[in-house]
Amino acid sequence: MRVTRSAICGSDLWPYKSMPHDDAGRRMGHEFIGVVDAVGSEVATIKAGDLVVSPFLWSDGSCVFCREGLQSECLHGGRYGFGDVDGGQGEAVRVPQADGTLVALPVGEDDALMPSLLTLADVMGTGHHAAIAANGPGKTVAVIGDGAVGLCGVIASKRLGAERIILLGSNPDRIALGQEFGATDVVRERGDGAVERVRELTEHGAHSVLECVGLEQAVETALAITRPGGAIGRVGVPEHDTTPTGVAFWKNASMGGGPAPVRAYIEELLPDVLEGRVEPGRVFDRTGSIEDVPDGYRAMNDREVLKFQIKP
Amino acid sequence: MRVTRSAICGSDLWPYKSMPHDDAGRRMGHEFIGVVDAVGSEVATIKAGDLVVSPFLWSDGSCVFCREGLQSECLHGGRYGFGDVDGGQGEAVRVPQADGTLVALPVGEDDALMPSLLTLADVMGTGHHAAIAANGPGKTVAVIGDGAVGLCGVIASKRLGAERIILLGSNPDRIALGQEFGATDVVRERGDGAVERVRELTEHGAHSVLECVGLEQAVETALAITRPGGAIGRVGVPEHDTTPTGVAFWKNASMGGGPAPVRAYIEELLPDVLEGRVEPGRVFDRTGSIEDVPDGYRAMNDREVLKFQIKP
Repeated sequence: MRVTRSAICGSDLWPYKSMPHDDAGRRMGHEFIGVVDAVGSEVATIKAGDLVVSPFLWSDGSCVFCREGLQSECLHGGRYGFGDVDGGQGEAVRVPQADGTLVALPVGEDDALMPSLLTLADVMGTGHHAAIAANGPGKTVAVIGDGAVGLCGVIASKRLGAERIILLGSNPDRIALGQEFGATDVVRERGDGAVERVRELTEHGAHSVLECVGLEQAVETALAITRPGGAIGRVGVPEHDTTPTGVAFWKNASMGGGPAPVRAYIEELLPDVLEGRVEPGRVFDRTGSIEDVPDGYRAMNDREVLKFQIKP
Repeated sequence: MRVTRSAICGSDLWPYKSMPHDDAGRRMGHEFIGVVDAVGSEVATIKAGDLVVSPFLWSDGSCVFCREGLQSECLHGGRYGFGDVDGGQGEAVRVPQADGTLVALPVGEDDALMPSLLTLADVMGTGHHAAIAANGPGKTVAVIGDGAVGLCGVIASKRLGAERIILLGSNPDRIALGQEFGATDVVRERGDGAVERVRELTEHGAHSVLECVGLEQAVETALAITRPGGAIGRVGVPEHDTTPTGVAFWKNASMGGGPAPVRAYIEELLPDVLEGRVEPGRVFDRTGSIEDVPDGYRAMNDREVLKFQIKP
């Protein structure tokens, strides 16, 4: 497929920061929309000419896990940019398991909704997953992190009926966007200060906590601000393998979540995007060409840009 | 209330093993049934002459957490045997918050169902809580621990519709009882051997894992044998505050549970006990008088006895 939109993900910044120099480089990118150029002989539902969005993982759509909506565990699936599989930050991608992976979009390739549709590849589905893993969400939600995923977690929480949404973050522009998305309260403190502030706002803590950062302090804050009997949905890639869950045990708080099976959520979220009821595409605050991608990485790494959209 | 039945809990063995010598001693016991002798002036529903069972925590039944079924977090509740509150291993108990705490039983004090009714005070409700915290349970359940709680977890899992129940334990008598309660498979290995065996039995792991031990190795086994997308319900008091949850994150497994709000479950479980559909009282394999209690502690601590029933 010819890529018409792509994006840089927060997780792309890890190899950006840590990968040793390598003249061969590696393929990058896993959030993209494009037009199908040709299909393999075993592809039955996707056809040439379709405008399609790909979730950030490819999956066969037919294995036991895919049928349960846990496409992130597909027995025949995988990640873009590894092995001989292309990455999305390029002109074209050969998508494995096209029928199971891709979802056709009923719009033109330059439709004004394109940024929001692009978030269905990852951040909107991931924010939604955090809300689902945090039990639904409950009446009072706390979202930890004002990155693109956290902001989509605000959208998801509001969409699922949360009455109160407390956004924990510190970047003024991102907080302002979070408030437009539905955050009713903002906590700018971190660590103990954040815990104290949430306790003041909620008395007993939040029913649902969306942990969209992954750093140790964020996870500890999540455990501390969860109401007894409440739930934490984690989508931030954990900084540490161990978690101080003792506090969760004693108050019967649960912790769930992980890599989001965003393929499971595309059909559910698509109508709200198409009809403009949610506008997750507003997380993209800069757009550039393939040539601008290196500077896009730099700008996201410097927190100068929230999320970078690529128009190849 | 005059205590007619009481029990020794596995958790009573902690102070038995670790408490420094103290001539004053302390009140013990939190699982008991008895006949109400007199009620305080503010008690409205419980009356003298009632045969009642008490959950292992007392609670007001009216606070925000009690109304949500999380009586273990009651804002005006507490534990037996602490402060000026009696313990259940005695002739009589003054129960705080009687209306919120106690449940009247429609049988006589020497009814043959008494042992099973006594388990509603703790172990049966705790096993049920593990199953609920482990999502319901799923089609395939693994129960870690062949103690009284684990065996009640088997009963709860079968009662809630599990198709397959794998009991992880090593004591032949307890395993045999677990099989009569509904365990379909038994894993006698521990650690890596147990993980391997559950994988052989289930291919991808168990949908629901009931962790009824609390020791570090048991928690690690629980994390390893949970199916992707599955859930762990923990009721074993954690040996450590930290848990290696990284493995759970990557496979989207959740972990919940804690001290069971057994008060919430008594009415639900009572009909099945009264009609003989479940027989959790079979976990009691020795009965003695108040004078026999010290030897009951010794016998439970030596794993000579599974659970000791007291007839004062």
